[in-house]
Amino acid sequence: MLCTQQPLMFQPCQILASFRRVGTSLLLQCKKANGDDKFRVERDTFGELQVPSDKLYGAQTMRSVLNFPIGSIGERMPKPVIQAMGILKKACADVNKDFGMDATIADAVSTACDEVISGKYYTEGHFPLVIWQTGSGTQTNMNANEVISNAAIKAMGGELGSKKPVHPNDHVNKSQSSNDTFPAAIHISVGLELNNRLLPAISQLRDALVCKSLDFKDIIKIGRTHLMDAVPMTLGQEFSGYAQQLSNAIARIQSCLPHVYELALGGTAVGTGLNAPKGFAEKVSARIAELTSLPFVTAPNFFEALAARDTMVEVHGALNTIAVSLMKIANDIRFLGSGPRCGLGELKLPENEPGSSIMPGKVNPTQCESLTMICAQVMGNHVAVTVGGANGHFELNVFKPLIVSNVLRSIRLLADGSVNFSKNCVKGIEPNSERISKIMNESLMLVTALNPHIGYDKAAKIAKTAHENGTTLKEEAIKAGVTEEQFKEWVDPKKMLGPK
Amino acid sequence: MLCTQQPLMFQPCQILASFRRVGTSLLLQCKKANGDDKFRVERDTFGELQVPSDKLYGAQTMRSVLNFPIGSIGERMPKPVIQAMGILKKACADVNKDFGMDATIADAVSTACDEVISGKYYTEGHFPLVIWQTGSGTQTNMNANEVISNAAIKAMGGELGSKKPVHPNDHVNKSQSSNDTFPAAIHISVGLELNNRLLPAISQLRDALVCKSLDFKDIIKIGRTHLMDAVPMTLGQEFSGYAQQLSNAIARIQSCLPHVYELALGGTAVGTGLNAPKGFAEKVSARIAELTSLPFVTAPNFFEALAARDTMVEVHGALNTIAVSLMKIANDIRFLGSGPRCGLGELKLPENEPGSSIMPGKVNPTQCESLTMICAQVMGNHVAVTVGGANGHFELNVFKPLIVSNVLRSIRLLADGSVNFSKNCVKGIEPNSERISKIMNESLMLVTALNPHIGYDKAAKIAKTAHENGTTLKEEAIKAGVTEEQFKEWVDPKKMLGPK
Amino acid sequence: MLCTQQPLMFQPCQILASFRRVGTSLLLQCKKANGDDKFRVERDTFGELQVPSDKLYGAQTMRSVLNFPIGSIGERMPKPVIQAMGILKKACADVNKDFGMDATIADAVSTACDEVISGKYYTEGHFPLVIWQTGSGTQTNMNANEVISNAAIKAMGGELGSKKPVHPNDHVNKSQSSNDTFPAAIHISVGLELNNRLLPAISQLRDALVCKSLDFKDIIKIGRTHLMDAVPMTLGQEFSGYAQQLSNAIARIQSCLPHVYELALGGTAVGTGLNAPKGFAEKVSARIAELTSLPFVTAPNFFEALAARDTMVEVHGALNTIAVSLMKIANDIRFLGSGPRCGLGELKLPENEPGSSIMPGKVNPTQCESLTMICAQVMGNHVAVTVGGANGHFELNVFKPLIVSNVLRSIRLLADGSVNFSKNCVKGIEPNSERISKIMNESLMLVTALNPHIGYDKAAKIAKTAHENGTTLKEEAIKAGVTEEQFKEWVDPKKMLGPK
Amino acid sequence: MLCTQQPLMFQPCQILASFRRVGTSLLLQCKKANGDDKFRVERDTFGELQVPSDKLYGAQTMRSVLNFPIGSIGERMPKPVIQAMGILKKACADVNKDFGMDATIADAVSTACDEVISGKYYTEGHFPLVIWQTGSGTQTNMNANEVISNAAIKAMGGELGSKKPVHPNDHVNKSQSSNDTFPAAIHISVGLELNNRLLPAISQLRDALVCKSLDFKDIIKIGRTHLMDAVPMTLGQEFSGYAQQLSNAIARIQSCLPHVYELALGGTAVGTGLNAPKGFAEKVSARIAELTSLPFVTAPNFFEALAARDTMVEVHGALNTIAVSLMKIANDIRFLGSGPRCGLGELKLPENEPGSSIMPGKVNPTQCESLTMICAQVMGNHVAVTVGGANGHFELNVFKPLIVSNVLRSIRLLADGSVNFSKNCVKGIEPNSERISKIMNESLMLVTALNPHIGYDKAAKIAKTAHENGTTLKEEAIKAGVTEEQFKEWVDPKKMLGPK
Repeated sequence: MLCTQQPLMFQPCQILASFRRVGTSLLLQCKKANGDDKFRVERDTFGELQVPSDKLYGAQTMRSVLNFPIGSIGERMPKPVIQAMGILKKACADVNKDFGMDATIADAVSTACDEVISGKYYTEGHFPLVIWQTGSGTQTNMNANEVISNAAIKAMGGELGSKKPVHPNDHVNKSQSSNDTFPAAIHISVGLELNNRLLPAISQLRDALVCKSLDFKDIIKIGRTHLMDAVPMTLGQEFSGYAQQLSNAIARIQSCLPHVYELALGGTAVGTGLNAPKGFAEKVSARIAELTSLPFVTAPNFFEALAARDTMVEVHGALNTIAVSLMKIANDIRFLGSGPRCGLGELKLPENEPGSSIMPGKVNPTQCESLTMICAQVMGNHVAVTVGGANGHFELNVFKPLIVSNVLRSIRLLADGSVNFSKNCVKGIEPNSERISKIMNESLMLVTALNPHIGYDKAAKIAKTAHENGTTLKEEAIKAGVTEEQFKEWVDPKKMLGPK
Repeated sequence: MLCTQQPLMFQPCQILASFRRVGTSLLLQCKKANGDDKFRVERDTFGELQVPSDKLYGAQTMRSVLNFPIGSIGERMPKPVIQAMGILKKACADVNKDFGMDATIADAVSTACDEVISGKYYTEGHFPLVIWQTGSGTQTNMNANEVISNAAIKAMGGELGSKKPVHPNDHVNKSQSSNDTFPAAIHISVGLELNNRLLPAISQLRDALVCKSLDFKDIIKIGRTHLMDAVPMTLGQEFSGYAQQLSNAIARIQSCLPHVYELALGGTAVGTGLNAPKGFAEKVSARIAELTSLPFVTAPNFFEALAARDTMVEVHGALNTIAVSLMKIANDIRFLGSGPRCGLGELKLPENEPGSSIMPGKVNPTQCESLTMICAQVMGNHVAVTVGGANGHFELNVFKPLIVSNVLRSIRLLADGSVNFSKNCVKGIEPNSERISKIMNESLMLVTALNPHIGYDKAAKIAKTAHENGTTLKEEAIKAGVTEEQFKEWVDPKKMLGPK
Repeated sequence: MLCTQQPLMFQPCQILASFRRVGTSLLLQCKKANGDDKFRVERDTFGELQVPSDKLYGAQTMRSVLNFPIGSIGERMPKPVIQAMGILKKACADVNKDFGMDATIADAVSTACDEVISGKYYTEGHFPLVIWQTGSGTQTNMNANEVISNAAIKAMGGELGSKKPVHPNDHVNKSQSSNDTFPAAIHISVGLELNNRLLPAISQLRDALVCKSLDFKDIIKIGRTHLMDAVPMTLGQEFSGYAQQLSNAIARIQSCLPHVYELALGGTAVGTGLNAPKGFAEKVSARIAELTSLPFVTAPNFFEALAARDTMVEVHGALNTIAVSLMKIANDIRFLGSGPRCGLGELKLPENEPGSSIMPGKVNPTQCESLTMICAQVMGNHVAVTVGGANGHFELNVFKPLIVSNVLRSIRLLADGSVNFSKNCVKGIEPNSERISKIMNESLMLVTALNPHIGYDKAAKIAKTAHENGTTLKEEAIKAGVTEEQFKEWVDPKKMLGPK
Repeated sequence: MLCTQQPLMFQPCQILASFRRVGTSLLLQCKKANGDDKFRVERDTFGELQVPSDKLYGAQTMRSVLNFPIGSIGERMPKPVIQAMGILKKACADVNKDFGMDATIADAVSTACDEVISGKYYTEGHFPLVIWQTGSGTQTNMNANEVISNAAIKAMGGELGSKKPVHPNDHVNKSQSSNDTFPAAIHISVGLELNNRLLPAISQLRDALVCKSLDFKDIIKIGRTHLMDAVPMTLGQEFSGYAQQLSNAIARIQSCLPHVYELALGGTAVGTGLNAPKGFAEKVSARIAELTSLPFVTAPNFFEALAARDTMVEVHGALNTIAVSLMKIANDIRFLGSGPRCGLGELKLPENEPGSSIMPGKVNPTQCESLTMICAQVMGNHVAVTVGGANGHFELNVFKPLIVSNVLRSIRLLADGSVNFSKNCVKGIEPNSERISKIMNESLMLVTALNPHIGYDKAAKIAKTAHENGTTLKEEAIKAGVTEEQFKEWVDPKKMLGPK
């Protein structure tokens, strides 16, 4: 049937051809780099396909490259996922050997995994796939299977693409399915990134805030509630609140970790473990624990472990809470450092760079800005993860690459942002003690200390009158019958810093 | 200066005056009910104000009613917050007595709190304030102070509004601030609701799913990944995954509880504890633990406890994860129950009501629809809580009524939704065993069992040929050289339900 | 089969029985009010059911009440939906008469709709259903059909529940389905609320800001970028930006309206219009346009109009943008009004109520707090609507009550919040001219005016030196070779308010 | 003061050093590529700094590289922003020439912009900055100023870094500020991407759906509401709904464009236009319109245009709505294509690649999965943009790089995803006509056609009896008194496809 529908005519502007979509950059680059004759033939159950001869991947990877030309370089499957895939393929090879796989082949597979783990194969372009592929990550699993089998074949002197003596499915993927390996790779990569990247980063920032809290413990300042002048406190107390938020952040991450350590490996296609030998699951998890020094174990229920990604939603819930904490802290610090002459001016933040292309000498709280933007991104990523987690069906959630890429990006941004904020901002913060002291002493809310002595209503009247008349509390208190001595005794900021 | 700007002219349609805004309904109702002569005068530091004579609240509550006429009845501050306020005011009165408050007054205050705790005063309209008031909840704290002081005054034979012998600030609010009481009320109400409402509800649904999982343990069905036919499993296994999700849900709530039990009480205005005696914080928390039978304690850092609401963001992160789990489960169940003749048709869901006003005899998975809508609401509430949590400044987060109302609404909806879904849907689910068996046996993915015997590539060819020819696996396997005996031995769904 | 699984034992705390779930309050209330003998029997295709004898609804409504006991009073289907249902049923009756329905019956139905439109039947409890029912709103459609048919029967002297002479399906619902009426009711209610509530409210606030912008046009103040001192501007210019945001808000709403005016009526069950006569759709839309004075028309494609709720996602996108605008404005105003002595202190906000239960005389920017909490809620509601909109399947989206309740709540909150903020905050804002002028003159960023004369680098040096030395710009400029006259001529805030 | 706080000890696992953070990759790469001797000295108002000698950027760019080592390659400021910066710097140079800038310098600047516009300088690494820099984009504006001035200097035979004869601030940035250029670059890049990328992509998918709608216009199938069997419709009607959703999507984008075309240029630092000549704003916008062939104009209010990013929130609201539409369409298509033997099986989707590493012959709806993951990402990005938009303060929103990067990413993903989905999925969809017809004819909901003849209640009884007995409608209808002839006449799917 002829479809006569005419498309809308969009007139692209003339000089900006470069803005237009130019195809699969990754593939084109590889084509250019190699010339037309530098391809070899690989095949899968769909048939033959040319792949760049200097790449280790095979037909299924190539098919995904061709079928999903989406986005630019930033859309690649994140490196930690690929490295985790290397770890688990190594563990599986080692355990398959125990279960009787030909030792030469098993060892070759195991060794081939090392350069996946090191990240070398990722950096060299053997893992070109994007996040926006099949939602199970099958294509990335096959990418790993293909690269590892070819690397093993190469090491054993075989022909790339021959699948002999090492077959990507029958050997590298033995006793596995994408449906249990990809979730496991998610948990392994997230477990490692939480431990090796986020926890040290948050801890570093927490420690920096604790230091400041100790440094500032004797600086008495005005507290602010509703942005309005309230009663005094120390700058150290204020910073201790920030430090507590981050101690809580550490606890929040740690309380997620036990679930992250649960691996789907052994569930194979739908959670039943079909085609895997009994005991395989437990041995593989143990081997991964060995390789990573993290206490990975077999998930208590494979059906949940394949069909749901709830643990990632839970982990991102912790990341979201951390984003909330950091946003609050960074906002406070930039407001307290606002000025230099027309703001609150209580803190002097490190001056790291010129702040304006038009206003000479301007310096801005750029580290706070970078961090708060990161926090907003994490809050957005959280919704993406939530939507992806909620939309799984039956035996398999197929929003996995979306989910893991957001979790890993949030971890990376929060970690880098926290280290940076700690190093380039918090450590260099100095109090503007003179100003802090001056405005604190002018505050009318010191009147609160009179409550226990003269009652709330009378105290309120004193404060309101001083506010209206632009006078001091003391003047009005004395008019109201408080003696000068009483006032001095009762309204002493130093005595207002704790319960009596 | 005269502003000459002319407003846009909006022409409201004629017949729908009723759609237009008619003012503060709560207040108007009370005016009508009482007549103009049924008001008494109350006063605060801003002056005098008429309040309905049959209400126990005072001037500050009335001022909030007048200043925030926002939304309809559903926008009222949730009842559990008010009840929690009663609990903490009672605890404070009891402890203030220990610290020397006049025993008669303290006891009168303590007793007056009982009808706040019971919910009676809320139901009778003594707590008319909406969520959209001051962000600290100060007005609700004062509402409680006013109602309790007037109730105590009344009990002692005094004059309502006289503030004698019981003053709302100097007695009921003694050693407290809105800034530590309102966060404490948040934690108390959320702690109680999580324990008394959500945990039993999720547990009930989990148990119902566990039962079904046991009931269905011998029903072999097709597994589905990517919505496509995969390998067999039992219906019991499928339901065990759902049950595991909810066991995890219970664990997620429980891991939040220790933070929920941390109370800000004792921090007073900015966290320093000004105007509270030493030891007050700990004694009050202990008293609240006694009253609620929950292990409430004093927060480790009052500055964090006033300035941040991170724990509520964390709690809602758990609720968000639960919403994700429930959405997945409810979606699966309605898809598995789709039909009756043109859908998947594996499950028969309870038929609870007519489903269509035009299609006679139609029955729909309405319980799943109700629950998934609730899940979507919880995901939205989570963003509201996140935004509120992130936007606190300095010593006080002022998005508290927003935050607590969303947390409590999410708890209530998830709890009621889970109980309902359990009772009106899950318990009555029956398998459509005939259909389950029929389609499972037609599935081509049983071919997977051939992998270990003939390899992935050859098995793929068999499946693809059967698919193209519309034949059975067996036919094609035999053509491909598998013997009938081998096929029978190898491709047996009963043997595909676990590792070997 | 016996399920031996033991449920977790949750021990509810003793004194707080009132916290626990007590069943369907709406129903119980009605039982209590009427006594056991005050029920009549109604029936639907599922059988008989008792309903309260003073209520007009029938068996299907009752079934929903019993099957969905979820949440408290605030979870009721919003009143504007019911009123819109009244409008649409009236229009259908009128048009059905034209198409040959018995005139006596048609007129009785049409007249019975008037008290639905007025809101009377909603207020009196004839529409007890909650949002969390079937996702198509079928039960609310049937609630309307039942109430209207019984009201018409009553008016005609018939027996309630007899369905004679007016049948809820065959007459009130004639040529309709829930699947086209409920979406139409969504569009009608949202169209009315946008026009009658939100547009006037935003316009009122916009006008108040325009007035202030004119009032403040000669007050020169420091501009702030990155929270840091920047170059001068007028306070009027600053407020003109806020006003522009709200003019844009009005335009954003108006650009959605044409899609809101598209009605699904006439599509009946799946969009084909089965059982409706030709021309019915267009006539009904025209009649609704007449009744509402809004230009409602028939949707261009019924399949889209039933299966998707994209227009509501679009509308809430506009509400979300408005929330973003209002949050920015309210934040600015409260920061500019912060103090009175330790903040920015440029604005004096109206003092509406006491602000603290412990700090006497404290006044807070409560209107800003109320409004920013509303904005956070709207941002959350937006995600709920998005999730609901994305999860429709096949011919019908079944997240409709969720979607419409969030859209209507956001409209109401933004409207009430804007009116309130306008009346209780913006109108009363006064500049603190003395302080504005003082700090503006101290700012170092006036140096920017030197750029065109001495270049950026040299100007930067002057500003930085003044900052380090705590001196004035003028002092350092003169040291750097600018003459006093030049400085006076070049660095004049009055000349820095626009391009030259 | 000595801070004695001991940090937590995190033990990174041994073999995975590669997982750990290794510093600023971009910078390190450049160091390696060049060797230590290949740096030149650049300076800004903060002092001197080494920059790679083969790069055109200067000290301020370098400072940002050093101060914000955040994330991996994917975190770079998006290319379209840089290209837009090139367009606007060219336009400014051209207009500055008209306003008297030395023609040789102005022309050199204008020419130097061409390689920024072409993307060459971005690809070559002259724009190394990440999104997570200062929230105003000042550093990217300075990056552009530095690269362009050095490129112009080079072309004129000068010394890189000498700022002579072309100064980055005094010439390239003349009459501009980051605060008006960066928002303008946002609007230019988004305007171009919407026109050149998203509109053609959505249009292509819409047209593909329209074609299918025409192709399928005679295939009668069962409609489904609540996932349950409903009344018949054509497959063409079903696809016409999808096409309508995308026609609406196009309209939604187009309704945003007029606001996108409003440029902040001319507002300079705070919106007053300080240091820009009168008429500059209008002339620059006109020149940009010329360069881009898009109708860019000067914003109506500069204060709004600098302080708010509401238009981007509005644009992303449209993207969010499009994501909702696409998610619905892709979900429908994969469910309708589910099977091949145990699903709905109405559609045959193109088979593009092997679908399982363990289940041979499995094919999955991968294009639907890719697209729905993209939709989830866009929904998340929307929240990030919303949070960023809501958190601006005073004269400048400082979440701009966050905002623009999310808007551009969402545009790119939706565009690429739509093209891909159209090409690799929609175009190849074939109906499974046999199955469609078979299940449609079995449906009990054909009973609806009896309503006008025998009434809803009687029709319901027929359908329910057939359901219980597993019989056909016809059998039960005849038992209920309908004649065979009547049944044939009344219950004819072909007559159920529209109003009569």
